[in-house]
Amino acid sequence: MSDSDAFEHWPVALVVQGLRQDLPDPVAVEEPLEIRVAPDAGRDPQPLSVTLRTPGHDRELVAGWLYTEGLIESREDLAEIIEGGPDEATRNRVSVRLRAGLTLPEEMARSFVSNAACGVCGKSSVDSIFVKGFPSLRHGAPVVAGSFLTALPARMRHAQAGFSATGGLHAAALFDPGGTLGLLREDVGRHNAVDKVVGARLLAGALPLRDEVMLVSGRAGFEIAQKAARAGVAILAAVGAPSSLSLRLAARSGMTVVGFLRDERFNVYTHPERIALEAPA
Amino acid sequence: MSDSDAFEHWPVALVVQGLRQDLPDPVAVEEPLEIRVAPDAGRDPQPLSVTLRTPGHDRELVAGWLYTEGLIESREDLAEIIEGGPDEATRNRVSVRLRAGLTLPEEMARSFVSNAACGVCGKSSVDSIFVKGFPSLRHGAPVVAGSFLTALPARMRHAQAGFSATGGLHAAALFDPGGTLGLLREDVGRHNAVDKVVGARLLAGALPLRDEVMLVSGRAGFEIAQKAARAGVAILAAVGAPSSLSLRLAARSGMTVVGFLRDERFNVYTHPERIALEAPA
Repeated sequence: MSDSDAFEHWPVALVVQGLRQDLPDPVAVEEPLEIRVAPDAGRDPQPLSVTLRTPGHDRELVAGWLYTEGLIESREDLAEIIEGGPDEATRNRVSVRLRAGLTLPEEMARSFVSNAACGVCGKSSVDSIFVKGFPSLRHGAPVVAGSFLTALPARMRHAQAGFSATGGLHAAALFDPGGTLGLLREDVGRHNAVDKVVGARLLAGALPLRDEVMLVSGRAGFEIAQKAARAGVAILAAVGAPSSLSLRLAARSGMTVVGFLRDERFNVYTHPERIALEAPA
Repeated sequence: MSDSDAFEHWPVALVVQGLRQDLPDPVAVEEPLEIRVAPDAGRDPQPLSVTLRTPGHDRELVAGWLYTEGLIESREDLAEIIEGGPDEATRNRVSVRLRAGLTLPEEMARSFVSNAACGVCGKSSVDSIFVKGFPSLRHGAPVVAGSFLTALPARMRHAQAGFSATGGLHAAALFDPGGTLGLLREDVGRHNAVDKVVGARLLAGALPLRDEVMLVSGRAGFEIAQKAARAGVAILAAVGAPSSLSLRLAARSGMTVVGFLRDERFNVYTHPERIALEAPA
């Protein structure tokens, strides 16, 4: 992602303690992206979804989105990814051809149409979706120390070029068991940042994730937890708060959720066996 | 919203500088809500959309969502709002009957179906949606002082009971021209918090908003700006950053956007004529 894709300059009146200064200020770029999919190689790709995203890494975003939504299982399911052209009408479009014989599962297609019943509104249904399509996690592994976790936010922040410029971009990052930053993506949408990371690993043939820790710059709501679990993340850490629904999903799928990871502290909400901690005082 | 709806307690391992303490911690509640609509009084309401939200003020949320999505124009368009029952299967459901003769506009219905073309992906289309359905704003009015704005975040924060407990709830608030907090709603979804505020005013017959300033606790992306403009908000202030697309919408629709409103400072991005400022030094 080049800087020019991630932010643009706006004329701003900056007011500090009543004193005004007029200057151009970098603002995070947000643009719609239309995702088209051809489930049959002989047909033209049809519009499936629209997301508001920060341009850049669109191939990864779409590949990751298709995977985390359960429409594909591996990069082999992707026959072709065609990014839109340079003109206004097509530049915010990515078209995907699935491999021959692969069709959109009926139940996935349903989730995008207007007359879909809510598949997650009843408790029993919620239970049923929690583990659907998730890779199984090795019990326990990986195990990291608390000091491993508290070192991560500063490393992520250092790599957040777009956030540093605009204050308006979320980030998702992967760290290896040695604490080295392996991958970071930014986006105005926190779910897009996760999809870009997952999509990059998918296109590299490196899914499911196993021993890498995922860190997100914001909160860890249901959509973030679902995408992480689907990608095989064993430890999901967030600078912000989790939600009740994300914790229910994590508890059932075997994923460790760490929240409020900042200022030398953190909370472990689910599966604490992966974090080496002293016994409670 | 009762406290018990907004958060629940989870067992947490709290780790501060390597020291562990086990205790129950309040977590923001996130649950799906199915929205059903009957465009014809003689038919059963059909599922239209699902949102993940914090329970509480569901009537306001659905009324506000229908309005900000452009499906209704006033409270008179709502013949009946039926909240789901106490059982697991229906408690996360709200059904709406529209007034006789009102049907879902074809173009709105399309936006929820799978084969919808992206209505906002081409630049000319984006332009066309920017002002569609927005109330016209009186030029200039209201005009507020910079000191008026810098006083708002502390007043909002003081009223954010759910955030104080969980750190995981967004808020949207309305302040009158005297700086008094008129309404505040919290939700795990920032767009839901805005819809709850707008829905409350809709059900009170108080739309479009005119002289109230809207403050949101997070960022002001496109969806937030669109909902605010649709409700007639003249000044939208955010504790966080705006996005490029929200600023384009605000510039065209006549809405003032203030960002990074915190620590005695703020940025004015669009229509600064509503903020009384000293001339630049």
